[in-house]
Amino acid sequence: MARIVMKFGGTSMAGTERIRRVANIVRKQQAAGHEVAVVVSAMAGETDRLVNFAREANALYDPAEYDVVVASGEQVTSGLLALTLQAMGCKARSWLGWQLPVRTNDAHASARIEQIDADALVASMQAGEIAVIPGFQGIAPEGRVTTLGRGGSDTSAVAVAAAVKADRCDIYTDVDGVYTTDPRIVARARKLPMVTYEEMLELASVGSKVLQTRSVSLAMKEGVRVQVLSSFIDDDAPSADELPGTMIVSDEELEGSDMESQLITGIAADKNEAKVTITRVPDRPGAVAAIFAPLAAANINVDMIIQNIAKDKGETDVTFTVPAADLVRTQALLDERKEAIGFFRLIADSRVAKISVVGVGMRSHAGIASTMFRALADRGINIQAISTSEIKVSVLIDEDETELAVRVLHTAYGLDAGDEAA
Amino acid sequence: MARIVMKFGGTSMAGTERIRRVANIVRKQQAAGHEVAVVVSAMAGETDRLVNFAREANALYDPAEYDVVVASGEQVTSGLLALTLQAMGCKARSWLGWQLPVRTNDAHASARIEQIDADALVASMQAGEIAVIPGFQGIAPEGRVTTLGRGGSDTSAVAVAAAVKADRCDIYTDVDGVYTTDPRIVARARKLPMVTYEEMLELASVGSKVLQTRSVSLAMKEGVRVQVLSSFIDDDAPSADELPGTMIVSDEELEGSDMESQLITGIAADKNEAKVTITRVPDRPGAVAAIFAPLAAANINVDMIIQNIAKDKGETDVTFTVPAADLVRTQALLDERKEAIGFFRLIADSRVAKISVVGVGMRSHAGIASTMFRALADRGINIQAISTSEIKVSVLIDEDETELAVRVLHTAYGLDAGDEAA
Repeated sequence: MARIVMKFGGTSMAGTERIRRVANIVRKQQAAGHEVAVVVSAMAGETDRLVNFAREANALYDPAEYDVVVASGEQVTSGLLALTLQAMGCKARSWLGWQLPVRTNDAHASARIEQIDADALVASMQAGEIAVIPGFQGIAPEGRVTTLGRGGSDTSAVAVAAAVKADRCDIYTDVDGVYTTDPRIVARARKLPMVTYEEMLELASVGSKVLQTRSVSLAMKEGVRVQVLSSFIDDDAPSADELPGTMIVSDEELEGSDMESQLITGIAADKNEAKVTITRVPDRPGAVAAIFAPLAAANINVDMIIQNIAKDKGETDVTFTVPAADLVRTQALLDERKEAIGFFRLIADSRVAKISVVGVGMRSHAGIASTMFRALADRGINIQAISTSEIKVSVLIDEDETELAVRVLHTAYGLDAGDEAA
Repeated sequence: MARIVMKFGGTSMAGTERIRRVANIVRKQQAAGHEVAVVVSAMAGETDRLVNFAREANALYDPAEYDVVVASGEQVTSGLLALTLQAMGCKARSWLGWQLPVRTNDAHASARIEQIDADALVASMQAGEIAVIPGFQGIAPEGRVTTLGRGGSDTSAVAVAAAVKADRCDIYTDVDGVYTTDPRIVARARKLPMVTYEEMLELASVGSKVLQTRSVSLAMKEGVRVQVLSSFIDDDAPSADELPGTMIVSDEELEGSDMESQLITGIAADKNEAKVTITRVPDRPGAVAAIFAPLAAANINVDMIIQNIAKDKGETDVTFTVPAADLVRTQALLDERKEAIGFFRLIADSRVAKISVVGVGMRSHAGIASTMFRALADRGINIQAISTSEIKVSVLIDEDETELAVRVLHTAYGLDAGDEAA
C-alpha cells in the first residue's frame, strides 16, 4: 500500500470521454490498494478561452479578477472527474483551492504555494475516498483566489504530494517519459528509467518541456519522488507501480539504484535564444556592468557571456545570449545607452541554438567537454560560445545545425539505443 | 444617494460586448451617486453546457459535485464584469459565494439561502467600490459549494438586497416590466407601474415568468422593493431612478401611492397543466385521501380539485390538475393503486389551460368571478374547473381557447390600453 498523487494535464481532461479514460487509470491505482489523490488541469483550450475573455474585458487586467475568471477551468474538471469516478463506483470528492486550503502568497496570476493544510485531505484518503484537486489554483492571505501561472498544475501536484507525504507523484503527460534527447530528432533516443532533479532542471530549462521547471525545483526541495508517464496507455500496458515512465529522484537514490552509471544523461536543444554582440566596448572597470545592469533591471535573463581579450586600443567585444522573446527589448535598452556605455555597434542574431549535454556523472569525470568540442569540430560545426555548470556543458551554434549536432553528440556519448548491448 | 442592488441575467451577460453594455448601466448608477452591488448570471447557454458535462460524467450525479461544476459559470461572469468596470475607471471587485459568504442549507442543487454576512460588502460599497456577486451560488454549512436551482440568481439578488438593506433591487431582464397580460397575446396590454408581492406571486405561478417565484416570496418576507426593467435600453431612455419598469411593493406602499386603484391587475394564462378525472370513486371517508396521498408523497403538486356530487350508487367522480410534466408519473401512481382506491377509469387531458385574473382590489369587491364567468360564457368558452384565492380567480378551459379567453377578459375588466382615458 502506498500513498500516490496523480496529475493529469489538459489534453487528458479534454471532454467527458477522455475524463473517463483518466478515471479508469485512477480507479485501477486505488484498486491496487493505494491511497490516491488526483490533481487536474482545465480542459485543453479552456484556459486560453478564459484568458481571452479577461483580456477582452480589460487589456490591463487586474490579476486578482483575472484569477477569479481563469481558475474556473480547473474547478469544472475536478467536479467532473469526481462525478466520473463516482459513476464507476468509487468514493470521490473534489477539494477546491480555498477548501483545502492551498495557501499561496498574494502574487496574483503567478502566485507561489506557501502551505497546504492536508489533515482533512489525508483523513479522506485514508477513508478510501479519492481526492480530486484542481491544479493551478490557491488562496491568497486576504482570502482571494490566486493562480500559479501557466503550467502551474505540475507544481500543484508536487506540492500536494509533499503535503500528504506521498510515496510518489505520478505526472501523466502526452509523452511516456524523459528521453536521452528529443525522439523526433534522434530515432534511437532512449527513455531514461531515472534522472536526478538537477539533471531534470537542466534538461527542462534548455528545452525538454516535459515538466514545469518550478515543479522540479519544488520536488527537489521537498524530496518528492516524481514519475513522468503517459496517460495514453493501453489497458495491457504496465501499471504505474511497475514504473514504466521516468522516475525523477535525488542523487542518493540514483546512486543506490542498480542503474548502470552513465556519464551523460541527455542532450537538449534550445532554439529560443538570441545572440547579441556589442563591439568596441571601452576596456575599463564598470563598462561591462553598464551593459548588464539595465537588462537585469528589466528582468531580462542573460545566459552565456563571453568577453573577448582586449585589443590594442583598450577596447573589447562582449557577446551574450538572451531569450529570443526579449531580443527587441534588449536592443532598445542598449541603443538608448549607446553613448553612456560607449560601444560602437550592436549585432543581433536570433538564428542560433544552444546545445547542452547534461549528466551528474560528469562531476567525477574529466574530458566531457573535449569530447563535445571534438565531435562537433569533426562535422565542421562552429562553436560560437560555451558555458558550463557542474552537470552541464552548453555550446551556441548556428540554428541550421541543431539536429545534426544533437545526432552527432547522441552517438558520441554512446546514448543510441542498442549501444549498451554492443 | 441610495443603496441599490442590480441583477443581470444570462442574455445580458452573453459575451464581453454585452457585459460592456451592462457595465455602462452599472457605471451610470454609481455616477448618479448611489452605492451599487451587482448580481450576475452565467453567460446564456453556459449553465446548460456545464449541466450537460455533469450529466455525461454521471447520469445519477452527486449534487455536491454537480454544484462545483455548474457554479463556475457565474464565477467567470462576475470576474469579467469587475474587470470591465475597472476598464471604465470604476473601482470594482468580485465577491464569490464562499467569500461573502452566502450561507445556504445543504440541499445541493436546490439550496436555500439562510444568511449573508454583509459587513465587508457594505464597507466596500461605502468606500465607493462596486461589488460584483455571482448569483445562484452559496456555501453549505460543511463548507462545500451549493447552487440554488435554475433561475436562482433572482433570489440571490433579493437576498443580497435584504442583507445590505438596499433601497431597491433592480432586476434587469429581457422585458421592460410586468404587463396586464402577455403583450404577444393582447397588443393593448399595459405595463404596470406597480404590483404587490402577492399579485406578482399569483402572476408568476400561473405563467408570467418575469421573476422566479422564490425571489418574490423572499422579497415579500424581507420587504425588499424590487423593480423589473429592461437591460436593452437606449442611452436616452429614463434611468432606473425614474422607475421606468414595474415596482413590486407591499400592499401598504401600493395604497400609499397615487396610483389609481384598480380591481384587477393582470390576467395570466398557463398551458402547463393537465387535467385528470377519476371516475366512480367510492363515496366513503378516506377514498379521496387514497388518491392524493401517493401524489403528495411523490412531490406532485395538485392544483384545482373538484369532487362531483355523489350519485345514487354511492360513487363520485374526482377531477384535478397537475403540472403537465408530472402527468405520466401521476397516471402510473394511480394505475398501480386502482384496486386499492377502487375507481373505475382514469381520464387524462393535457389539452387544457388555466386562465387567472389577479388583483388585490378584488378583496373588497364582489362580482369579480361572475364578470369572468359571464364574459367567457358570452363567447361560448366552457369552464371545466374553477379555483379561487383571496386575490385570484382561476378557470380551466380548452387549450385552443387560451388566447381568445385572455383577450375577452382583458377587455371585460377594462385593462386595454386607452381605456382609462375613455
